[in-house]
Amino acid sequence: MKQHETGIIMNGVTGRMGTNQHLMRSILEIIKQGGVKVSSTETIMPKPVLVGRNPVKLENLSKRSGIKNYTTDLDSVLGDSNYSVYFDAQTTDRRVESVKKAIKAGKHIYCEKPTALDSQSAMELYNLCESAGLKHGVVQDKLWLPGLRKLRRLVDTGFFGEILSVQGDFGYWVFRGDHVPAQRPSWNYRKEDGGGIILDMFCHWRYVLDNLFGDVESVSCLGVTHIDERVDEDGTPYECTADDAAYATFELEGDIVAQFHQSWATRVRRDDLLTLQVDGTKGSAVAGLRKCVMQPLDATPKPVWNPDVDNPHSFYDDWIPVATQQEHQNAFRSEWELFLEHVAAGRTFPWDLLEGAKGVQLAEKAYAASEQGARLDVPPLIG
Amino acid sequence: MKQHETGIIMNGVTGRMGTNQHLMRSILEIIKQGGVKVSSTETIMPKPVLVGRNPVKLENLSKRSGIKNYTTDLDSVLGDSNYSVYFDAQTTDRRVESVKKAIKAGKHIYCEKPTALDSQSAMELYNLCESAGLKHGVVQDKLWLPGLRKLRRLVDTGFFGEILSVQGDFGYWVFRGDHVPAQRPSWNYRKEDGGGIILDMFCHWRYVLDNLFGDVESVSCLGVTHIDERVDEDGTPYECTADDAAYATFELEGDIVAQFHQSWATRVRRDDLLTLQVDGTKGSAVAGLRKCVMQPLDATPKPVWNPDVDNPHSFYDDWIPVATQQEHQNAFRSEWELFLEHVAAGRTFPWDLLEGAKGVQLAEKAYAASEQGARLDVPPLIG
Amino acid sequence: MKQHETGIIMNGVTGRMGTNQHLMRSILEIIKQGGVKVSSTETIMPKPVLVGRNPVKLENLSKRSGIKNYTTDLDSVLGDSNYSVYFDAQTTDRRVESVKKAIKAGKHIYCEKPTALDSQSAMELYNLCESAGLKHGVVQDKLWLPGLRKLRRLVDTGFFGEILSVQGDFGYWVFRGDHVPAQRPSWNYRKEDGGGIILDMFCHWRYVLDNLFGDVESVSCLGVTHIDERVDEDGTPYECTADDAAYATFELEGDIVAQFHQSWATRVRRDDLLTLQVDGTKGSAVAGLRKCVMQPLDATPKPVWNPDVDNPHSFYDDWIPVATQQEHQNAFRSEWELFLEHVAAGRTFPWDLLEGAKGVQLAEKAYAASEQGARLDVPPLIG
Amino acid sequence: MKQHETGIIMNGVTGRMGTNQHLMRSILEIIKQGGVKVSSTETIMPKPVLVGRNPVKLENLSKRSGIKNYTTDLDSVLGDSNYSVYFDAQTTDRRVESVKKAIKAGKHIYCEKPTALDSQSAMELYNLCESAGLKHGVVQDKLWLPGLRKLRRLVDTGFFGEILSVQGDFGYWVFRGDHVPAQRPSWNYRKEDGGGIILDMFCHWRYVLDNLFGDVESVSCLGVTHIDERVDEDGTPYECTADDAAYATFELEGDIVAQFHQSWATRVRRDDLLTLQVDGTKGSAVAGLRKCVMQPLDATPKPVWNPDVDNPHSFYDDWIPVATQQEHQNAFRSEWELFLEHVAAGRTFPWDLLEGAKGVQLAEKAYAASEQGARLDVPPLIG
Repeated sequence: MKQHETGIIMNGVTGRMGTNQHLMRSILEIIKQGGVKVSSTETIMPKPVLVGRNPVKLENLSKRSGIKNYTTDLDSVLGDSNYSVYFDAQTTDRRVESVKKAIKAGKHIYCEKPTALDSQSAMELYNLCESAGLKHGVVQDKLWLPGLRKLRRLVDTGFFGEILSVQGDFGYWVFRGDHVPAQRPSWNYRKEDGGGIILDMFCHWRYVLDNLFGDVESVSCLGVTHIDERVDEDGTPYECTADDAAYATFELEGDIVAQFHQSWATRVRRDDLLTLQVDGTKGSAVAGLRKCVMQPLDATPKPVWNPDVDNPHSFYDDWIPVATQQEHQNAFRSEWELFLEHVAAGRTFPWDLLEGAKGVQLAEKAYAASEQGARLDVPPLIG
Repeated sequence: MKQHETGIIMNGVTGRMGTNQHLMRSILEIIKQGGVKVSSTETIMPKPVLVGRNPVKLENLSKRSGIKNYTTDLDSVLGDSNYSVYFDAQTTDRRVESVKKAIKAGKHIYCEKPTALDSQSAMELYNLCESAGLKHGVVQDKLWLPGLRKLRRLVDTGFFGEILSVQGDFGYWVFRGDHVPAQRPSWNYRKEDGGGIILDMFCHWRYVLDNLFGDVESVSCLGVTHIDERVDEDGTPYECTADDAAYATFELEGDIVAQFHQSWATRVRRDDLLTLQVDGTKGSAVAGLRKCVMQPLDATPKPVWNPDVDNPHSFYDDWIPVATQQEHQNAFRSEWELFLEHVAAGRTFPWDLLEGAKGVQLAEKAYAASEQGARLDVPPLIG
Repeated sequence: MKQHETGIIMNGVTGRMGTNQHLMRSILEIIKQGGVKVSSTETIMPKPVLVGRNPVKLENLSKRSGIKNYTTDLDSVLGDSNYSVYFDAQTTDRRVESVKKAIKAGKHIYCEKPTALDSQSAMELYNLCESAGLKHGVVQDKLWLPGLRKLRRLVDTGFFGEILSVQGDFGYWVFRGDHVPAQRPSWNYRKEDGGGIILDMFCHWRYVLDNLFGDVESVSCLGVTHIDERVDEDGTPYECTADDAAYATFELEGDIVAQFHQSWATRVRRDDLLTLQVDGTKGSAVAGLRKCVMQPLDATPKPVWNPDVDNPHSFYDDWIPVATQQEHQNAFRSEWELFLEHVAAGRTFPWDLLEGAKGVQLAEKAYAASEQGARLDVPPLIG
Repeated sequence: MKQHETGIIMNGVTGRMGTNQHLMRSILEIIKQGGVKVSSTETIMPKPVLVGRNPVKLENLSKRSGIKNYTTDLDSVLGDSNYSVYFDAQTTDRRVESVKKAIKAGKHIYCEKPTALDSQSAMELYNLCESAGLKHGVVQDKLWLPGLRKLRRLVDTGFFGEILSVQGDFGYWVFRGDHVPAQRPSWNYRKEDGGGIILDMFCHWRYVLDNLFGDVESVSCLGVTHIDERVDEDGTPYECTADDAAYATFELEGDIVAQFHQSWATRVRRDDLLTLQVDGTKGSAVAGLRKCVMQPLDATPKPVWNPDVDNPHSFYDDWIPVATQQEHQNAFRSEWELFLEHVAAGRTFPWDLLEGAKGVQLAEKAYAASEQGARLDVPPLIG
C-alpha cells in the first residue's frame, strides 16, 4: 500500500468552524481511517500543521486533536516545502491577503467561503491561482448535506418532471444576549466586521441553486436589520449594523423561480433549520439537513377550502420520506477527501475559486438590489 | 320585537361563491335565525331578490334556497323602492357598470372584491357613493376567518412585542385538468377573462396587512405563469395567459416586512392552505384558516446545527395552540351582519369602497413592479 | 329539458348480481337522479321491464324496487317496440340463446360476462349484432373500480416509467358449507353448471390487462380443484367438478409479465380481496378495490437480508396512498350510464361484444394450457 | 471433556457469504463457544485454514477473524492430513473441479449451493463421494431460518389439515447502480458469470419444498430479464444477460400446488423479503425470515365484496403470530454444527450432495421449461 503524504497548512482552525468541522470531523477522521483511499494500492495521508494568532488556543487545540505541529508564524510554514496545501478558515476580512501570500509561495489553495468581501478580489484570487498553475477549491459543504443529496437524487432521477419553483427557508431565533446568551458571535451583526446574513448565506445559495437547479440569472432582495441592539460576548450592548434578515427572489435558468427567506429573527415552524421546497409538474419535495420528503403528483391531495369546519386532513400526511439508500459521512469531510484526491491524484474538482467568486458576486448583487429597490441581472463571471 | 325589513338585490349569486357563501351560508342563515338582532327589541330581516342572466339557473337556485323572488331584469328591481341595498357578486369585469347603475338608483352598495379591474375605476365607485350619501361596503371575509381573528387577538394583547416580519404562504396544487379535473374554473388562468393570482389575492392581502399589522408602503413582486397549458371544463386544452404564482415582498409601516408566496402550482407542507407567520421580539405565531399556534420568547428553542446526526427534536413541538375562546360563525355572514347593522342601524363599518379600492391598487402596483423589476411605493389613496 | 325514454328488457335480474348491482344500484339510482344527463338540455331516462322464470321472485323484486313492469314471457317483450335494449344477466349457459333471440328482434344488446361458454359462440353474437347494425356492450365493471381507476391514472401520468410486471392476487376462503354456510352458490363449483374460477375470472383479467397494461399475448395456467367435496344450499354434500383455484402467467405486449393467483381456497393476508401490484422502473403500486398505494423509486428502501435479528423496518411503511382526487360512483352504474349514452346519444363505447369474446377466449386458452401443460399463444380475434 | 479437533479447509471464504455467514457467524462463533458439544464429555472443535486466491484479502481476513492459518496453495492443504473436511464457498463455476480434487484427497465434503452448474456434474460429485466412502453435505440454510422452522412446526403439529397450496414471494428492488449503488454484485446479472435468479434461488426452493411439504414433481416457469442494462461496481454500464425475475408453478406430491414469484425488480409490500403462504383445509400461515403468522379455520373471516364503500376491515388483523417458543441461532451455524456432528460423531445428516444435486436439477428443469414453454416433469434422481 503506497501512501502519499500531503502537508496542509491549516490557518484559522482555532475558530469554531475550523476546529469542529475542518480539523476534528474532517482531517482528524481521515487520518484515523488510514487516509483517503484512491485505489486498492494507494492512499493519501494528510499531514497538517495548525496556524493561528493565539498561541494558547493553538496549544490547547494541539492537545485536544493530538496534532503536534502548530505555529503562529505563517510565513515560516509557507516557506516549508513539506506543505503543499494552504487552507484558510480565518475571518473573511483576513482571507484575501493570506491566500495571496500562499499563492506566491506556490501552495495549492483550499478555503472557506466567502472567499473575499467583494467579487473583484474573489476573482483576483482565482486568476492568480490559474496563472500560477495551482490547484484550488472552496468549501461548499451544503452540497454534501444528506438532505440535499437526496434532493439532488430526485432531480437526477427526473422525479419532479419540469421544475417550476424553489422555496428556501433558513434561520432561527438568535437570542439578543440579554437574558439568554446569544448563540452566534457578535461580529455577525456588525457590518464593519464582515457580518450580515446576505454575505454569509448567499454564497451558499449560489452554489446550491447553480448545482441543483440552474444558474442564477437575477436577484431581487430586501435586506433589513430587525434587531437594532444586541449584547455581545462580554455582556456589553452594541448597535447592530449588519442585516439580520433578507427577503429575496431569484430567477434561475429554465424559468425557475426561487424565493428565499433567511432570518436570525424568526422562529422555526418547519422540518428543519434550513428547508428547501421544490415544486415540479410531476411532484414536490421538501429537504432539510438530513431528511427529505416527497409528494408525487398522484399522491397530491385535492383539498377543499372550507373555513367553517376544522380540517380533518393533515397536510403533513401526504408526504413520504425519500429513502436513505446510502449512508453519508460529514459534509465537510466529503469535500476534503475530494479535494485531496484532486491535489494528489488528479481527480476533477469543480468547486473552485471561480465558483467561490460567484457566491461573493451573488451577495454583492443582492446588497445592490436591496439598496436600489431593483431586480438586478447576475451576469456570468469570466476569469 | 320590531323588525326592520331590508330589501337586498343580490346580483350574480348563481356563481359558486355567490350561491354558497353569500346566499346559502349568509343571508339564508340570517333569515333562519330570525334576522340580525340589533337590540333587545329590534332586528333586521333581509328580504333578498335573486338577479342573474340565466333563468334556468335562477329557477334552480330559487328552489334550492326557497327564496321566491328572482329576476333577470336588473333595471326593474333597481327601480323598486322595496330594495335599499344592491349587492354585486358578478365576475369582476361586469361589476363597475352595474354598481354605477345601482348608485344612480340610490341603492346602498355592498360588493365582492376586486371592486374593479383598475384602481381609478375603484376610486370612482367610492367617490360616487360618497357624493350620493350612500352607504357602501366591500367583502373582506379573511378578516373574519377564525385563524386570523386569533392572530388579531395576539396583536391586540401585545403578545408579539415589536412585530418584525410576516410570512404569508398561500396556495395548493391546481390540477391541470388532463388526468384529474381541475378544481378551479379555467377563466382564473386567462388574463383576458379577469384571471390571475395577483388580481385575485392581493386585494385580500391589502386589507389583511393594513388591518392586522400596518399600512402597506411598498411592493416588490415577480408574477409568473408556471403552467403554460391547462385543460378546461369541456376537456379542451387552452393556453394559460394569467399569472398562476407570485413572489412578493411588502414593506409595511413600522418597519415590518411581509414576504408572501402564493401559487396554484405548489404542494402543501404546512398547517393550512393559507398560513401567516408573524415574528416579533416577544414571540411568534402561525395562523391557518381556523387554528393558530404561538411560541413565546421563553419557549423559543436554541437549536444546534448538526447535520451529522438525525435531529431528535421536532420543531413542530415548540408551539402551543391559541385557545378557541369563542366560536366564530361563517366569515362572510359575520361581515354581512355588520353591514346590515351599518345600513339599518347606523353602526360604523370601516370596510368600505375606499378600502376596496386599496386592494385593487395593490394588485395594480404589484403587476407594475413585476414588469418593471422595481420596488414600487404604494401611495395613500385620497377620495 | 328533453327526456329520451329508453326501454330496457332486464332478463335475469332476480339473481344476486342482477338484483343488487344492475337493478338496485344502477338502473334504479339512475332513475332516482332524474336519468342520465347528456347535455344541459337532454337526459336519458331508463324504463325497465323485469324478466325472469320465477313469478314469485319477480313479484317480490317488483315490490322491492318499485318497478311495476315485469313478466315471465320474454318473447312478448321482445316483440314490444317500447323496448329498444335487451340486457342479459342469466346464468351463462342460457345467455347465447336469449341474446340471439333479442338480436333477431332488433334489440340493442348489453350483457353480463362471460358472454358465452366458448369463444366461437361469443364471436357469433358479436358478428350477428354487427351485421344487424345493433349497438352492443358487455359488463366490464372492474375497470370502474376506484382502486383500478387510480392505477389507470398512475399509468396515464407515467408514474411507473417502464412497466415491468403485474402481480394479481384474487380470492378468499369460500366455506365448504358444512359447519358454516358457503358464501357462494354451489353451481360455481360444478363444471357442468358453468362453474369454475377460470371461466369466471379470466374474462375480467382479459379486459383489465388489455386496457391497463397491454394486450395479452400468451397464457400458462394450472387449474385445480383443491376442495373435492362441498355442501350445497340444501345441506347436501356434492362433488366439486370445477376448478376452484388457478395459477397463471400471462405475457403482455411490451414484454410485461403478469402472474395471477386466484383461489377460493386461500386466506387473505393482503390489502384487499383483489390486489394488483404493478412494478415499473420508476415506481410500483398496489391497488385494491378502492384504494391504491404507491412507492416511487426514490422512496424505495434498500433492505438488508439479516435473519439473525428481527427486522425493525416495516415494508408496509414505504408506501403512500394515491390521493382520491375525485369521487367514483358504483362501477356497474358508471358503465350503464356510458352504455345508455352510447345507445341514445351516439357516444363511443369500446367495451363491446368483441371485447367480451376476448374474455371468453382467454378462459378457453387457459383451460387448454392447463390440460396440455403448455404456454399457449392468444391470437387476435377477428370479427 | 474430550475434544475432537476437526481440521477444515475453508476455500473461498474471502467472498461476502463465506466471510460473514460461514467464517464469522458459524465457525468462529463455534470456536468461541468452546466447540460443538456432542455429549456431556465430548466436544468437536473446528480448526480452520483459510484458502483463497488473493493473498491481501486472506491476510486481512486472518487479522479480522484471528484465524492464523491461511494459504493460497489449495493443493498443499489438501495433502495435509490435519484437515479432514473440505468446505467450498467459491463462485459456482470453480466448485466442481475443486471438490473433485478434495474427494481425491480423501476429504469429507461440505459445500455451498449450487453444487454445480448442471445436474450431471452435481450427481457426479455425489457418486464420487459415495464411492469413496466420504461424508458430504450441502448448505441448505433456509431450513434453519426461524420463520421456516415455525412453519415446519405448524406442518408437524397438523395445524394445516390437508395442505392445498403454497405461495412463495421472494425479492426486492435491486438498484440499477446509476443514481444509487447496486446492493448486489454485477455478476449476478450476467449469465456468462454464473448469474441468474433461477440458478440462485431454485436450489433453495427445492429443499424447502421437498422438506416442508412434499417432493417437487413438475415445474412451469417463465424467466425474464426485466432490467436490460445496469451499472457495475466501477460505474460502467453493462448489458444484463441473466434472468432477474422468474414466474414459476410447481406441482408437489400430495396434489399440492406451489406458485413462486421471485424478482430483483419488484418492490416489497409484504411481511418480509421472503414470504411463504401455506393454505390448508384447517388453516393458513404466512412465514417470513423470522416471524410467522397463522389463521385457523375458525378465525377465518367471511368477507363481503363491496367496492362502493371503503372496507372498514383490515385483512392483516385476522392473523395471530406463531409463538417464538425457542430461540434460534444463525441458520448457517446450525447446519455447520449438525455437519460436524455427522463427520465427527456419526449423527445422520440428510442434506447431502444428492439433495444438492436435486436443487441444481430443479434450476435446470426450470430453465428448460421457460425456453420450451412447457410444464416439465422433475424425475427422481438416482445415484
